[in-house]
Amino acid sequence: MRGAVMYAPGDVRVENRDVPAIVEPADAIIRVAAACICGSDLWRYRGIEQLTGPAPMGHEYVGVVEQLGSAVTTLRPGDFVVGSFFASDNTCEICRAGYQTHCVNRRPGAATGAQSQLLRVPLADGTLVATPGQPDADLVPSLLAASDVLGTGWFAAVAAEAGPGKTVAVVGDGAVGLLGVLAARQLGAERIIAMSRHADRQKLAREYGATDIVEERGDAGVARIKELTNGLGAHSVIEAVGTQESMMQAIRATRAGGHVGYVGVAHDVSLPGEELFFSGVHLHGGPAPVRRFLPELIQLIWDRAIDPGKVFDLTLPLDRAADGYRAMDERTAIKVLLQP
Amino acid sequence: MRGAVMYAPGDVRVENRDVPAIVEPADAIIRVAAACICGSDLWRYRGIEQLTGPAPMGHEYVGVVEQLGSAVTTLRPGDFVVGSFFASDNTCEICRAGYQTHCVNRRPGAATGAQSQLLRVPLADGTLVATPGQPDADLVPSLLAASDVLGTGWFAAVAAEAGPGKTVAVVGDGAVGLLGVLAARQLGAERIIAMSRHADRQKLAREYGATDIVEERGDAGVARIKELTNGLGAHSVIEAVGTQESMMQAIRATRAGGHVGYVGVAHDVSLPGEELFFSGVHLHGGPAPVRRFLPELIQLIWDRAIDPGKVFDLTLPLDRAADGYRAMDERTAIKVLLQP
Repeated sequence: MRGAVMYAPGDVRVENRDVPAIVEPADAIIRVAAACICGSDLWRYRGIEQLTGPAPMGHEYVGVVEQLGSAVTTLRPGDFVVGSFFASDNTCEICRAGYQTHCVNRRPGAATGAQSQLLRVPLADGTLVATPGQPDADLVPSLLAASDVLGTGWFAAVAAEAGPGKTVAVVGDGAVGLLGVLAARQLGAERIIAMSRHADRQKLAREYGATDIVEERGDAGVARIKELTNGLGAHSVIEAVGTQESMMQAIRATRAGGHVGYVGVAHDVSLPGEELFFSGVHLHGGPAPVRRFLPELIQLIWDRAIDPGKVFDLTLPLDRAADGYRAMDERTAIKVLLQP
Repeated sequence: MRGAVMYAPGDVRVENRDVPAIVEPADAIIRVAAACICGSDLWRYRGIEQLTGPAPMGHEYVGVVEQLGSAVTTLRPGDFVVGSFFASDNTCEICRAGYQTHCVNRRPGAATGAQSQLLRVPLADGTLVATPGQPDADLVPSLLAASDVLGTGWFAAVAAEAGPGKTVAVVGDGAVGLLGVLAARQLGAERIIAMSRHADRQKLAREYGATDIVEERGDAGVARIKELTNGLGAHSVIEAVGTQESMMQAIRATRAGGHVGYVGVAHDVSLPGEELFFSGVHLHGGPAPVRRFLPELIQLIWDRAIDPGKVFDLTLPLDRAADGYRAMDERTAIKVLLQP
């Protein structure tokens, strides 16, 4: 079986890997129909996050159930499924509260290695959601987006309490930020300010519902958001980068009593307590409980009410994964879809 | 007019100060009936917060309207009023959203100098709330508590989303923490865990509705909260101290998806972004918008449904303010009431 493995920063190779097998009764084996490269994969690609050895890559996937463990009850072989990047039982108290990424039985790295032909998914009943039928080919990218970037952007918009009457600002114009725009729109936000200085991303942000574009960053970006909001700041700010600068930009662009939804994986971020205290904002985020939103998101995609698959502006065969990493690293592509 | 002034850490003197006068048409002059010493005053008393010169002290007060500026419409001379520690117009967009401490026209230090016989309060219509009539003497301490510590504990409980079915943990056994217990109880929390190692405070916590007491602090305190909550952590945690240790204790004692309401004024606190990210908690707090809650809290006190005045375990004449500061600093008193 072919699969992508990162050996060192900048060194991704597609090679033969062992065919996965059912290990536990709750497992499923999926034949991957499409996988993709995540912004969070770039932390290791760029050497910011340490590699401890060759690492099978990928945690976003859609595919067809090939084989099921004896304990799986909600899926059948042949089902087309969308998975989330953490395996969860979806039955514990934390899952029932909608925080499946914090499931008491979660497997954080469980779906790792999704950039491959076959994938073992533990806790299949709690992790995978079957689509209503076999999807048309043009729906596959959107379903794949639901597996992580859409679910993450959606969670950020929910955490930021985007909704009717609200002005939402989005920090970060990667796939998650752009889909945060889409989510804010779907949730009924009145005004959506996308922060981006790239023409292609600005264009997609507008297609997804952005009403304003702000090109400035940092303090200048904050000042621009204040200008656009009567000096008060946005009601809701989505943070989809994960750096010190982007977090502070998000907090400072939010009005007192407003909400920051942050989903950029924080790296070397330290929040000054006193500034946070006097900001009066709400802060919520973390690894998105995508599983909470999957049934709703799959339905919206199935009904062609949303088209999150547009974030994939480069499609490559799995064997060219290395080119995909390069394109995302150099930002010549927003998001890369890999076909096994 | 007599008033308390801090000259240096540990050096509080009651001396003759200028009688305040109406300066702006929205001002009121209040004859202070009772004032008190705040835990936040101790930061300067202990030299942790810098003094820039002799500082009139106090920002919690109740009293009788002595004189009003020409623009004040909701109050009459002779009204008994409860004020909040920041002056606010209570009409701007931020006030209407319930964040009066962030009012666009706020006066953060406006009520400073309340430990005195007379006090000028700007933006009187937006800052002061009249009681339904002249209060019985035994209600005065409770009304005074509403001015800050009760309003702050209440905000913390609201920010922590204390409510039916919830387990609430309270970090900090000062007046704010104890009144956070009272607030959580009023808001319908099922279980309230007070963190305290002082018998007198434990006793009051129980009277206010605490169902459990945890004496451990730091990691051991967190472990104890987890033990009491099936390994998950509390749904809601009130943070009423403001140190690095107490903030981390609060965050770590909260389950994923739960809520931390923090009202301890943060000093030298720095929140690690990655830990916060993976905690999955909601964080909200800051200077409490007491004004939002005053009408409701005054009514509860008036109806004798709550008795927050019990936190005052030492009453002194204003001229003995220095003894009051010493008692709070040495924790021989929970909260000191000063009678001008």
